[in-house]
Amino acid sequence: MKNVKVIIWGLGAMGSGMAEMLLKKKGVDIVGVAGRGSKVGKSMYDFLSVERGDRPDVIIGSPEDVITEKAADVVLCCTDSFTKTAFDRLKFVLEKKINVISSAEEMAYPQAQSPELAEKLDEIAKANGVSILGTGINPGLIMDLLVVIMTGCCEEVEHIVSRRVNSLSPFGPAVMEEQGIGITKEEFIDGVRTGKLSGHVGFHESIQMIADAIGWKVDKVTQSMDPIMTDVDRKSPYGFAKAGNVAGCAMKGFGYVDGELKIEMDHPQQIEPEQVGVKTGDYVIIKGTPNINMVNSPEVPGGIGTIAMCVNMIPHIINARPGLHTMLTLPVPRAIMGDLREMISEEAKIVK
Amino acid sequence: MKNVKVIIWGLGAMGSGMAEMLLKKKGVDIVGVAGRGSKVGKSMYDFLSVERGDRPDVIIGSPEDVITEKAADVVLCCTDSFTKTAFDRLKFVLEKKINVISSAEEMAYPQAQSPELAEKLDEIAKANGVSILGTGINPGLIMDLLVVIMTGCCEEVEHIVSRRVNSLSPFGPAVMEEQGIGITKEEFIDGVRTGKLSGHVGFHESIQMIADAIGWKVDKVTQSMDPIMTDVDRKSPYGFAKAGNVAGCAMKGFGYVDGELKIEMDHPQQIEPEQVGVKTGDYVIIKGTPNINMVNSPEVPGGIGTIAMCVNMIPHIINARPGLHTMLTLPVPRAIMGDLREMISEEAKIVK
Ligand SMILES: NC(=O)c1ccc[n+]([C@@H]2O[C@H](COP(=O)([O-])OP(=O)(O)OC[C@H]3O[C@@H](n4cnc5c(N)ncnc54)[C@H](OP(=O)(O)O)[C@@H]3O)[C@@H](O)[C@H]2O)c1
Ligand SMILES: NC(=O)c1ccc[n+]([C@@H]2O[C@H](COP(=O)([O-])OP(=O)(O)OC[C@H]3O[C@@H](n4cnc5c(N)ncnc54)[C@H](OP(=O)(O)O)[C@@H]3O)[C@@H](O)[C@H]2O)c1
Repeated sequence: MKNVKVIIWGLGAMGSGMAEMLLKKKGVDIVGVAGRGSKVGKSMYDFLSVERGDRPDVIIGSPEDVITEKAADVVLCCTDSFTKTAFDRLKFVLEKKINVISSAEEMAYPQAQSPELAEKLDEIAKANGVSILGTGINPGLIMDLLVVIMTGCCEEVEHIVSRRVNSLSPFGPAVMEEQGIGITKEEFIDGVRTGKLSGHVGFHESIQMIADAIGWKVDKVTQSMDPIMTDVDRKSPYGFAKAGNVAGCAMKGFGYVDGELKIEMDHPQQIEPEQVGVKTGDYVIIKGTPNINMVNSPEVPGGIGTIAMCVNMIPHIINARPGLHTMLTLPVPRAIMGDLREMISEEAKIVK
Repeated sequence: MKNVKVIIWGLGAMGSGMAEMLLKKKGVDIVGVAGRGSKVGKSMYDFLSVERGDRPDVIIGSPEDVITEKAADVVLCCTDSFTKTAFDRLKFVLEKKINVISSAEEMAYPQAQSPELAEKLDEIAKANGVSILGTGINPGLIMDLLVVIMTGCCEEVEHIVSRRVNSLSPFGPAVMEEQGIGITKEEFIDGVRTGKLSGHVGFHESIQMIADAIGWKVDKVTQSMDPIMTDVDRKSPYGFAKAGNVAGCAMKGFGYVDGELKIEMDHPQQIEPEQVGVKTGDYVIIKGTPNINMVNSPEVPGGIGTIAMCVNMIPHIINARPGLHTMLTLPVPRAIMGDLREMISEEAKIVK
């Protein structure tokens, strides 16, 4: 079998990480990178500062030049957070008869907030004989799929708490700004009101994914967003919060079934949590038969986790039946420590 | 759609628990129970001491009488631990063109120790247009599938420890005997030598499942079995261990890749662990990028967990393509809190 051929669209933090990860794997080639602006025309290897070795060069090009019919087995699309903004790009790839994995948070379960677009993506994928998936660490695994798998050993489920307490210290300036690190309480409240502070995107998706998986009909999803104030100065590589200012953003999400609160999401994110004795971790707490009381501590880092999830789902999305998939319809994600080709069924390969 | 129709073969602890669980679910009927000996001819409801309500009675019958062609959508076969002993029964069901879920430990990954029988089951299932799965709590979820899913967020995996520290106190006399509760050290050593003490069945299956999932080629699997001696008297409903005698059985399993120890299973089981300060729990510890350090404490109870896993996989095995499946080839398990029929695709239904 020919090596699995991958194109990356969007060489930001996630796309670059996926490229670096893929370059270490067996049985797979990056055959193209679609970018924009000053990146176009540059070598991917130079851009990443990775040794090319005896591999053919990959020159970053425009999507139209790079993503042509059946040019790859899969495109990793790492450009967006929202289904609406990603839609045209995803459609473009599907119509080139190539499978696609999107890192957009809302694409982890587009049925939640954009059911019509989800429907359309499903139709376009099927019409072109390929498949599409949105995934990442959260949404994608920690606050949803991991909850679902643990309900798998339950006879009954009464209530779910999904908690992710994580550190924002590894993240860059964009995240510091989105989360309001270093601003005052008043500025934070104002930023929430105006929508300037985005916080975490994904509660609607995670709640709907869990509910649909186990057969609960959610009738309402709400969320809240509060500043995490610090009483000591906190400093991370790209963030600084003076004592008295905002060191993080605490988001909660609530899913109601028949008017009753059944699914709770709790996701406080801050810089330097250790400094104030906050232990980070991913928690799955199920009240049911039996109860589940699970924690992974420290938390799975969001960047590495998302990079790995998108890359590790490549075999599954290539093998999948045509259409829109979610983490609920495919086999469980797993690391790729062998030759990627051994995970692919011959008839599903696009680049023969 | 007609209700999903289920037959249970073997109304022991697991089969009875599955029956009771199914009787509480929507969109599903138990249409038959296959048993033997004095059970035959009895009403399932009387046997379980469950109110029949306005449901038609279910009389326990011989397998030949109960399991006839397309008599159900799935048979839950809860009679065995080993692929070899289960084989004829599983073949019998498949040839009646009915899907089957087996609770036999070795059937969770028959490829590990009975690859020829696995091959045959796959062929028979395909020839009859139905599918077959082995599952349970362990093997089936805790020491294998849960490990696999957590590798899904890893770029690299170097070493895996899967640990299950559990209490045997809820179990009955058969388990007390199999695990050597209350006997002396000498008797235990002798029981291991003669094979009288079976301990946990499933390390080969769990290790091979993990390795195959992530692409490691296992070249050797070994295991050890040691007594857990107690220095205080310990008493559980069905077990008693005098101070100085055996209160449990500590099993370890080791999977080697290219001569290097890569997968470790650690599974100490004992009565009344709390009495000596042992905290029970299920642990997934991955050395990789990133590291994973996960614990569910206390452990998922083995009985309820196995009952739930087998029942909760019913929709997946009905929907699956014909052939032998494993937990690696199907979507993640999930609780069934709604109508079971909503999880089934019309064309996959056997009893129309
Ligand atoms: N589900 C999850 O758990 C999860 C986790 C992490 C990230 N995400 C999401 O995944 C997306 C990517 O994350 P990131 O950290 O990589 O963001 P990033 O660093 O901002 O990178 C985005 C990249 O996309 C490129 N891009 C945007 N529009 C483009 C277009 N029209 N044509 C070509 N390239 C385009 C950008 O190019 P320029 O450099 O030219 O702007 C940039 O290189 C984000 O929306 C993020 O929220 C999800
Ligand atoms: N993977 C896992 O995590 C997991 C967990 C729990 C159990 N298991 C396995 O699942 C199996 C069932 O467990 P269990 O606790 O229910 O055992 P159990 O209480 O001993 O029940 C076994 C039942 O099967 C019946 N049976 C055996 N051979 C039969 C035959 N030829 N025809 C009809 N009925 C037959 C027995 O009938 P009689 O009463 O007439 O003997 C008994 O009712 C065991 O092998 C166990 O090791 C696996």
